[in-house]
Amino acid sequence: MNKKLFIKKLERVKLAIFDFDGVFTDNLVYISEQGIESVLCCRSDGIGISRISSIGIINYVISSESNPVVKKRCEKLNIPLLQGVDNKKNAVLKICNKFNIKPEECMFIGNDINDIPALKIVGIPVAVVDSYPEILEHVIYTTSKKGGRGAVREICDMIFELKTQSQRNITI
Amino acid sequence: MNKKLFIKKLERVKLAIFDFDGVFTDNLVYISEQGIESVLCCRSDGIGISRISSIGIINYVISSESNPVVKKRCEKLNIPLLQGVDNKKNAVLKICNKFNIKPEECMFIGNDINDIPALKIVGIPVAVVDSYPEILEHVIYTTSKKGGRGAVREICDMIFELKTQSQRNITI
Amino acid sequence: MNKKLFIKKLERVKLAIFDFDGVFTDNLVYISEQGIESVLCCRSDGIGISRISSIGIINYVISSESNPVVKKRCEKLNIPLLQGVDNKKNAVLKICNKFNIKPEECMFIGNDINDIPALKIVGIPVAVVDSYPEILEHVIYTTSKKGGRGAVREICDMIFELKTQSQRNITI
Amino acid sequence: MNKKLFIKKLERVKLAIFDFDGVFTDNLVYISEQGIESVLCCRSDGIGISRISSIGIINYVISSESNPVVKKRCEKLNIPLLQGVDNKKNAVLKICNKFNIKPEECMFIGNDINDIPALKIVGIPVAVVDSYPEILEHVIYTTSKKGGRGAVREICDMIFELKTQSQRNITI
Repeated sequence: MNKKLFIKKLERVKLAIFDFDGVFTDNLVYISEQGIESVLCCRSDGIGISRISSIGIINYVISSESNPVVKKRCEKLNIPLLQGVDNKKNAVLKICNKFNIKPEECMFIGNDINDIPALKIVGIPVAVVDSYPEILEHVIYTTSKKGGRGAVREICDMIFELKTQSQRNITI
Repeated sequence: MNKKLFIKKLERVKLAIFDFDGVFTDNLVYISEQGIESVLCCRSDGIGISRISSIGIINYVISSESNPVVKKRCEKLNIPLLQGVDNKKNAVLKICNKFNIKPEECMFIGNDINDIPALKIVGIPVAVVDSYPEILEHVIYTTSKKGGRGAVREICDMIFELKTQSQRNITI
Repeated sequence: MNKKLFIKKLERVKLAIFDFDGVFTDNLVYISEQGIESVLCCRSDGIGISRISSIGIINYVISSESNPVVKKRCEKLNIPLLQGVDNKKNAVLKICNKFNIKPEECMFIGNDINDIPALKIVGIPVAVVDSYPEILEHVIYTTSKKGGRGAVREICDMIFELKTQSQRNITI
Repeated sequence: MNKKLFIKKLERVKLAIFDFDGVFTDNLVYISEQGIESVLCCRSDGIGISRISSIGIINYVISSESNPVVKKRCEKLNIPLLQGVDNKKNAVLKICNKFNIKPEECMFIGNDINDIPALKIVGIPVAVVDSYPEILEHVIYTTSKKGGRGAVREICDMIFELKTQSQRNITI
């Protein structure tokens, strides 16, 4: 799909759902000898999340991981989280339902094969550029930045500019 | 050896033994001022390990390191571990014996010179692409991904596809 | 702006103010499952800071982050810090005022859009090479090294050489 | 200097002294919000150090840093350490004296300008490939691998092969 068509779809977004590992991170995990996990995130993602929150876009994170590290990052960025999720498709539908938003108005961004069922049911399925190739046929856009290295900020900036631009157009 | 011949050998695999440092990690170690070690692993490796476990391939990790960080990662991935191993060849033979599997049906994947004795006695010796060059003459396949950056997932995906494919062929 | 003009402006510097994340770091943050943040800094930056301190250039760090990790690094490098800053422009003016230095004699180095107001009011606005592109039109120099990978050292070395050189010329 | 001449000098080495940050590490430091420092080291360096120790080469680490993280790594690798060193030249001479070894028989490997005085007085001054360029005129060899990414192993492997080779020649 070309970018123009993607933009057209993205203009309808009301709900942005993010996979965590590989999207907010580079899909790597630091493990200490005490078994404590850490992940590496990008400070600039926070600015992106704040921007789209400020214009009323709902954010959500879905993660199959049950480690508390995901929760800690989401708390800091002020994003609600569904964790330890086995079935990401059901989780997406549940969140859509909660906010009374149609799946067509929902963006989901992922990076691995367990994201495919969720990507298939949303209107705006997106992959980070360093995704597993199996998922690429299920998305309509691939970010230019990598997971954990600005992919979240990139997609948020696109949404923010689209929405504030169309806002300006409406006002005019 | 070309890939076709490697595939033929890999079809026989019943037991997959992994070196830890340099295979599940990038061979680096984080050391804190308290002396606590951490390593950097790839979330996507877990999906690969689950996949081959689900079709009955036995997994094992052998490590010369005695630091508990190796144990913590293997516990999370649910892989049994022989740790603090000086003689990797003997360790491989011991594991083959335990499961009554011939060394020819065993894959071993390593990255450094202390893996050579183990690589020499298995039927399917593999190296990660960022191995020390001295070991390359002892392997029949080199992964395209680096250690700790998808090498484990890559080899697991190859096994999974081979085995489920041949399964489908048998069923037909 | 070409380098010659930048050098001319840099010769007047009396106060060097640094953004923290993205300048002293690569703009990434490590988050543990206990919620503890860590950042990755460059040992060689310390030599740069010492050098310019030794010739009387005042250093300061301004950060919008309120996490104690910023404080810890600044303590180690012996740089005073204004933390949890929402309005970086006001913070710069406050520091200029404190030391009775004109904004024209102040360098500010940043990496993201929230640095723009501060960059606009100083005489020597600088960006690290891996900055968000939106800020580049507001600076007169972009470092060749990345944030957290020698950018601080690079700008300090430039100041040190300029100042000690002109000192030597004066002496002669 | 060409490699042949370097090899000739390296054949005489009895004592190998290593700078720590930038040689055993990539010159970066992880800082937590509790002020705890961590560094990133290469597992394969340990094999190199063991190899040259096994043939009687004396190892030593000199570091200007006083943080305990340096000590922890050296303990693990079993290398003696002089820490918090301001004058690396004096430290080198002290170690030479302790073992009754001439500076001409000593290798020193560093990466930054504070290593220059030490590099100037040893017979075998070496730099890692990612050193600050100012030091390169003071060395006779630059490693092909980066600090913390195999530079130590590389130089140890060179020494080990030279010494065991000449041993074999002597035996013959």
